[in-house]
Amino acid sequence: MKPLRLLGIDVGGTGIKMGAVLAGDPPRILETDLLLQEVDRPVGRTVAVASERLRALVAAVGWDGVDGVGIGSAGLIERDPGRIAFSPNLPAWTGASLPDLFRREFRVPIRMDNDVNAFALAEWRWGAGARAAHVVFLTLGTGIGGAVIAAGRLIRGARGFAGEPGHATLIQDGIPCPCGNRGCAERYVGAQGIVDAARRHPGFESDPLSEIDPLTPEDLSRAAAEGSTMAREVLAERGVALGGLLVTLVNIFNPERVVIGGGIAQAGAFLLDPARDHLARCSLVARHAPPEVLPAALGEHAGLLGAAAVILDDGGNFLRA
Amino acid sequence: MKPLRLLGIDVGGTGIKMGAVLAGDPPRILETDLLLQEVDRPVGRTVAVASERLRALVAAVGWDGVDGVGIGSAGLIERDPGRIAFSPNLPAWTGASLPDLFRREFRVPIRMDNDVNAFALAEWRWGAGARAAHVVFLTLGTGIGGAVIAAGRLIRGARGFAGEPGHATLIQDGIPCPCGNRGCAERYVGAQGIVDAARRHPGFESDPLSEIDPLTPEDLSRAAAEGSTMAREVLAERGVALGGLLVTLVNIFNPERVVIGGGIAQAGAFLLDPARDHLARCSLVARHAPPEVLPAALGEHAGLLGAAAVILDDGGNFLRA
Repeated sequence: MKPLRLLGIDVGGTGIKMGAVLAGDPPRILETDLLLQEVDRPVGRTVAVASERLRALVAAVGWDGVDGVGIGSAGLIERDPGRIAFSPNLPAWTGASLPDLFRREFRVPIRMDNDVNAFALAEWRWGAGARAAHVVFLTLGTGIGGAVIAAGRLIRGARGFAGEPGHATLIQDGIPCPCGNRGCAERYVGAQGIVDAARRHPGFESDPLSEIDPLTPEDLSRAAAEGSTMAREVLAERGVALGGLLVTLVNIFNPERVVIGGGIAQAGAFLLDPARDHLARCSLVARHAPPEVLPAALGEHAGLLGAAAVILDDGGNFLRA
Repeated sequence: MKPLRLLGIDVGGTGIKMGAVLAGDPPRILETDLLLQEVDRPVGRTVAVASERLRALVAAVGWDGVDGVGIGSAGLIERDPGRIAFSPNLPAWTGASLPDLFRREFRVPIRMDNDVNAFALAEWRWGAGARAAHVVFLTLGTGIGGAVIAAGRLIRGARGFAGEPGHATLIQDGIPCPCGNRGCAERYVGAQGIVDAARRHPGFESDPLSEIDPLTPEDLSRAAAEGSTMAREVLAERGVALGGLLVTLVNIFNPERVVIGGGIAQAGAFLLDPARDHLARCSLVARHAPPEVLPAALGEHAGLLGAAAVILDDGGNFLRA
């Protein structure tokens, strides 16, 4: 069977990544393009420009057509019928039904899902979650995203809003979160939480890291790799907090694997080993059925491959790759 | 179609409830029996005695056979092939494959699941979760049990151990839990957590409740219903803690409904209203897709109906009712 010819559209706050993807195993990204977001541009106009660019992509790779279009987007996404219910970073996109808009341009099956579900679908199909029926996915970045495959199907919830473990309560009455809750896991293991932990470390003021502004978790990862005791201690402490979230998720889902992506996951063993230790020690379910805790495998391409994966079969009824 | 004739076997720490259930809608419990547990009795002997009693039940209701047997049991249950992987209260039962043992006596389809999954299946089929595809179930008692129906299927996890939200971290580094974690939700909203909160209340020593020993959450519920301000304040405070757990679960699952059963749920609005308020205020997902939070509907029969429901179709491939 010939691999499907897919267009992937990864809608982010700063830009729209687009790609022509041949959905084999492994998949091949044949060509990509990037359209920067302009806050004032109406959604319909952006879709028109993106469609032109997509047609140019199709021409560039020599396809005489496409089999499907998948869209991954930040925000709360109502998957049926495919609408952005809430777009925190691009308010104008709230309410936009992107599949309908793109369907005027491409008369093929089109589906949209949120970017973290898209990431999970790609890692599940082609990456660190492959060949497992029960997988918890986390993306660690400014926020913490999450998605869960249970018995081979993505958990979507009643309106498609499932999968916000970054807003699982880690410390009831803890640090206020813009979401309205207090003590969300994201406040401790998101980028700001990690940087704040570094600033509170007694050795911070006398460390070269204190001269970096703005300091990022990636700076800490780099310093840890280069031997900084302080950076390692901070990542270990936050790894335990990540472990607390993993305890919750593993006790709820009993997954075979936990796949962790996003920028901070680059810290690798400095962050993940303490999380693994905490999980093994503190999770009832992990003690009886220990899951693997793995870094994501698709790297920078996960977003685009994820967008493409949105149109593929997810145990539901879309295209079969 | 004639309703299926089922035997339900609800294996608890102190007794084994058995019943003949006609699986119509609503279901009818035609006859029940109770076999007390004896710690020293070998499992095989208990199964033999239970089987005799079950045959007597079948004769008493005038059936000439049964269509299936469902078993709900406390502990970590590996559903395939149906084995008690860990039985905290009845150590001798750890490792027992009850469906195999009962199959020697009844040559019909037999399945076993854990008692909370069984409760959830009954409430989902016949009770407060009926006609909803996305439901979170909690049982509040000595511990907190949980189960989740997502897209019409019970989440079981890799080995059947999914659904332990009582051991979701509510306060990282909080009260130690026998499970190995600290700050599990169960430590705050389980029976002991609620009673401890009452003892810490400044008005406790001068309240008639202080003379009850052992004090139970049911005593607090009763006092609250009779007008005790102290009892109401304690239940309200613990309701907020319950709300913290609901925030985590609703943000992860985006359910249409949350169904709460178990002894403490009898406290009704005194406990559930503060939990609902906290959920509505603190959950990102609930704000965009508010779930109903309902008390369980099947009352004392939930365990037995649940056991019977284990053998019915759960989106998998068992008997169709």
